[in-house]
Amino acid sequence: MKSVSFENVALGGFWKKRFEINKNSTIPMVYDRFSDTGRFDAFKFDWEEGQPNRPHIFWDSDIAKWIEAVAYSITKCPDKNLEAIVDGVVDLIEKNQDESGYFNIYFTVCEPDNRWVNRMAHELYCAGHLTEAAIAYYKATGKDKFLRLMEKYMDHIETVFIKEDSAEFCTPGHEEIELALVKLYDCTGNEKYLNMSRHFVDVRGTRQKDEDSPFYINHAYDQSHMPVREMTDATGHSVRAMYLYCAMADLAKRTGDKELFDACRRLFESVAYRQMYVTGGIGSTHYGERFTEDYDLPNDVAYSETCASIGLALFARRMSLIDPDSLYADIAETAIYNCALAGVSLKGNAFFYVNPLEINLERRRKNKEYYQYKGSSFDITQRVEVFDCSCCPPNIARFIASIGDFLYTYNNDTVFFHHYSESEAEFDGIKITQNTEYPNNGKIKITVKGMAGKTLAVRIPSWAENYSIDADTAKTEKGYAYIAINSDCAEINVDFAMGCRLVAANPAVEADIGRVALCRGPLVYCAERIDNTTALNNLSLSENLNATLAFDESMQAYTVEADGFEDGVFDGLYRTYRQNLVPRKIKLIPYFAFANRGESDMLVWLRVK
Amino acid sequence: MKSVSFENVALGGFWKKRFEINKNSTIPMVYDRFSDTGRFDAFKFDWEEGQPNRPHIFWDSDIAKWIEAVAYSITKCPDKNLEAIVDGVVDLIEKNQDESGYFNIYFTVCEPDNRWVNRMAHELYCAGHLTEAAIAYYKATGKDKFLRLMEKYMDHIETVFIKEDSAEFCTPGHEEIELALVKLYDCTGNEKYLNMSRHFVDVRGTRQKDEDSPFYINHAYDQSHMPVREMTDATGHSVRAMYLYCAMADLAKRTGDKELFDACRRLFESVAYRQMYVTGGIGSTHYGERFTEDYDLPNDVAYSETCASIGLALFARRMSLIDPDSLYADIAETAIYNCALAGVSLKGNAFFYVNPLEINLERRRKNKEYYQYKGSSFDITQRVEVFDCSCCPPNIARFIASIGDFLYTYNNDTVFFHHYSESEAEFDGIKITQNTEYPNNGKIKITVKGMAGKTLAVRIPSWAENYSIDADTAKTEKGYAYIAINSDCAEINVDFAMGCRLVAANPAVEADIGRVALCRGPLVYCAERIDNTTALNNLSLSENLNATLAFDESMQAYTVEADGFEDGVFDGLYRTYRQNLVPRKIKLIPYFAFANRGESDMLVWLRVK
Repeated sequence: MKSVSFENVALGGFWKKRFEINKNSTIPMVYDRFSDTGRFDAFKFDWEEGQPNRPHIFWDSDIAKWIEAVAYSITKCPDKNLEAIVDGVVDLIEKNQDESGYFNIYFTVCEPDNRWVNRMAHELYCAGHLTEAAIAYYKATGKDKFLRLMEKYMDHIETVFIKEDSAEFCTPGHEEIELALVKLYDCTGNEKYLNMSRHFVDVRGTRQKDEDSPFYINHAYDQSHMPVREMTDATGHSVRAMYLYCAMADLAKRTGDKELFDACRRLFESVAYRQMYVTGGIGSTHYGERFTEDYDLPNDVAYSETCASIGLALFARRMSLIDPDSLYADIAETAIYNCALAGVSLKGNAFFYVNPLEINLERRRKNKEYYQYKGSSFDITQRVEVFDCSCCPPNIARFIASIGDFLYTYNNDTVFFHHYSESEAEFDGIKITQNTEYPNNGKIKITVKGMAGKTLAVRIPSWAENYSIDADTAKTEKGYAYIAINSDCAEINVDFAMGCRLVAANPAVEADIGRVALCRGPLVYCAERIDNTTALNNLSLSENLNATLAFDESMQAYTVEADGFEDGVFDGLYRTYRQNLVPRKIKLIPYFAFANRGESDMLVWLRVK
Repeated sequence: MKSVSFENVALGGFWKKRFEINKNSTIPMVYDRFSDTGRFDAFKFDWEEGQPNRPHIFWDSDIAKWIEAVAYSITKCPDKNLEAIVDGVVDLIEKNQDESGYFNIYFTVCEPDNRWVNRMAHELYCAGHLTEAAIAYYKATGKDKFLRLMEKYMDHIETVFIKEDSAEFCTPGHEEIELALVKLYDCTGNEKYLNMSRHFVDVRGTRQKDEDSPFYINHAYDQSHMPVREMTDATGHSVRAMYLYCAMADLAKRTGDKELFDACRRLFESVAYRQMYVTGGIGSTHYGERFTEDYDLPNDVAYSETCASIGLALFARRMSLIDPDSLYADIAETAIYNCALAGVSLKGNAFFYVNPLEINLERRRKNKEYYQYKGSSFDITQRVEVFDCSCCPPNIARFIASIGDFLYTYNNDTVFFHHYSESEAEFDGIKITQNTEYPNNGKIKITVKGMAGKTLAVRIPSWAENYSIDADTAKTEKGYAYIAINSDCAEINVDFAMGCRLVAANPAVEADIGRVALCRGPLVYCAERIDNTTALNNLSLSENLNATLAFDESMQAYTVEADGFEDGVFDGLYRTYRQNLVPRKIKLIPYFAFANRGESDMLVWLRVK
């Protein structure tokens, strides 16, 4: 099975608008903030003690992700100014790279004596992101200087970590290099890089040397608690976990390692069936930004980091390449349209790192003294332009710029339609057009050319309880309807009925008990107080929703007005219970669009009556 | 209006059993633990640096409350051994009291240079409790040595705080002495003590000298943020608040100070109508053991300290002496039968300091790492024999030993029946008998002798939606039915219909929304997982309770089995919502009896369907 690259896909509709916002607003905004904070200047390697903007251990990766976003964006929309900025950074990398091949701002400028000493210091993580950036930039521009510099760096890493085993640790405290090495192998064809990736994955959780720096709870925090093939549950820091699992899936695909694939499947199920918010958010606790336990999904203190949801989508996409099971694309879709998209404002210029499923300003205010005394566990309620730890803004930028990667995979016989969007794609003599208002409408007119004698496999989204496909379906297996194409130009109309539906969580999720989330197609909805004028927990949705839709230009999606109830007020504190619900309308908006109109209470899981 | 002392009331039924458990188990248990921890030995004043059991600033008060409990207990059941122990303590107090009259273990033995320096060091608080103990012991035994020693101490305090104003502060950081001084005035008739009490109450919140030690949030913590007559809301540490308000009510009664009474009424309403758990627990947060804001009553992290609930009952009793409004006795009843009684185990040998309204062991376990990292906010789930800060065990002991104080007040015309219990009382030529199974049955046969020409005022509990009184009721005013008594021996039967009822909280109490508490008479019920075999939040009570009762000997109360539902299970994490409730029975027990059968989940506010 092969991927169809975003390069081969021209997106229209919802995602075209998102791509343009990303290009016109997000990429320049992140550039400005990274310039202001000295991240670009840091590549000059001239910072000295006492100056402002001391380089941080993961600044290399912040810029790398921004370069990757630029590379994807200029593939579609060339931009000489952006290219010149990247060329300047690459020149500085060339100038300041150590003769050995080593390149790291912090451990050259700030702590030159501490190279490869601290497993948690993100050196290999930064090397991975720089390599991903170099590959993307090479593909976008054909310029290979950055790529060669990173190959030299990887050769140095091979010497230190494999040939000599001379570092103070064996595997990175924050995974990322493993998946980057597979990309480098794919790009260069050099098996050395595949072997290096396999080394880092295989050695993980097996070496005494890595066990000297327990971080947070234990070694499950960085997925070093056991050999990866033995893992059954997603654990620890959720971004770290996703990047490791991506590499495991990459390796399983390229080496046919069944044991590794089986571990990936178990880990994916552990997330999808027991540890994921309905928004596709993962990693429920602030403390360690990590997975906690099955069904432990509190809504107000949810961590649910933007980067983790992006990582989940990336992991799912890799799994789709091995195993044609719609579970993966279903989960990717959930993560993409909800938690990940919520990470950036509608205007593209402000970001959430943490994506709660409930904001109750009053409760936060009441608990403020308490939480200040204990250390805050509630995060911000408004998106901001930059964070000290600013992994998410450039990550969402590179993710949106390359979102076309997700649509299709194919093999000699079959083209798999994993995701839907107004689009045109061309690859290997095949041309596919989707005409659709997806994600706002489930009707898709598919036109395929050059597929006579092949099969088209259409994902039936798990949310689609009713659907129609105006073609003969040979079989429906693991969520895909397989349709034989007999003519050179075929048109198929599918319609996934996109009504508003109420979703319940397993009763084991205590936070959601007695509550429902309103969903429509892939979008999860939420209520904001700004639309509903009362404390959101006073509201109950009616089982008979009687929903009406209204298109909102700024969201590029429908808002919903549904029937519900509000608890009637009474004086005093307690009284004999009697049913006391006053009928009223409740307005909901897509979760990804929350907090775009000033500070407001927000609630995904509403009571139901 | 006068009080009828517990000395004049012989209790039977529920309270007789509680009195006996208190005498046979609680008082000896607290003695043993206080001996083990060096609290009694501390009165020898021979502790030296480096020895174990360093005296603590409030150990004097721990022993004082225990002595007070002994005094009340031996009033009913003489006990020469207990009396000998108290005499020994009194001898040590006499021996070690400073010539000036000063007596404090910690500030004589540990920090002799720091007398009257630290407003938060509980010196005046300890003086108050010692004085209460001395009065109780004098009344119980006629021995006045302890009383004289404390009068000497109070004279010293008058010199330091009023005549000289020479201490580093003006008023106690923890109130208690104010109400003790009123008791000392009542006992001795010496107006000096009434004036001292008035001084401490009037000066509070007015002096610059007291404003140098902000503690926790601000001066509202110790009710020093404004003159007491201006207060509108109960604030700060809830035990401190209650003891201050008791003294304010005491002074309002004895001086006719209308302004002070009005402040008491506002403060009482602030508690009863906006800041009290349905169990009569108050002070919702661990952080500062204090009131937070109106309607902020979380159930799992509830603080709801035993001593605070006792304090609320004491405040209510004082208000009943001024204003014949049943609000006070209603609230006292709630606090007594629920939060306060929950403070001690059924066997009388173990104690809760904190009384949550929800225990979810799984949630606590899941959050353990998180809360350990932040500092715990969940308290213990099993009662223990002793605490470092052991105010509650002797407090509940003295409270139960003198519970008869609560039943009646009277003036020349009218005897007010505030509380119900199998009992006989004699005072001022009046004899009252109550035959009842209260709190388990609302039927009370009242027999009164010596009341011809007077009026009997029977409190109609706020929970009694239906009731009958087989006598002519002249009027019903502020919750009391006034009945003229014409014969020397009259019998009146009242029946407060005691069905199981569901109680709802004001929707402003976010924690209770969509939930109900099952109550029967004055008792609030809770479900324990040990009886219900599933996560308690999976249960919903049916609006049609269809309750059946079963008497439990160990609880001396009824358990309830009611109709309800359990959420049906399903595989996976999310699915389309459909009503999925499986009918089942739910067992509930009185809240005061929770956590007597090992560690278990517990829930007061159940969902309702």
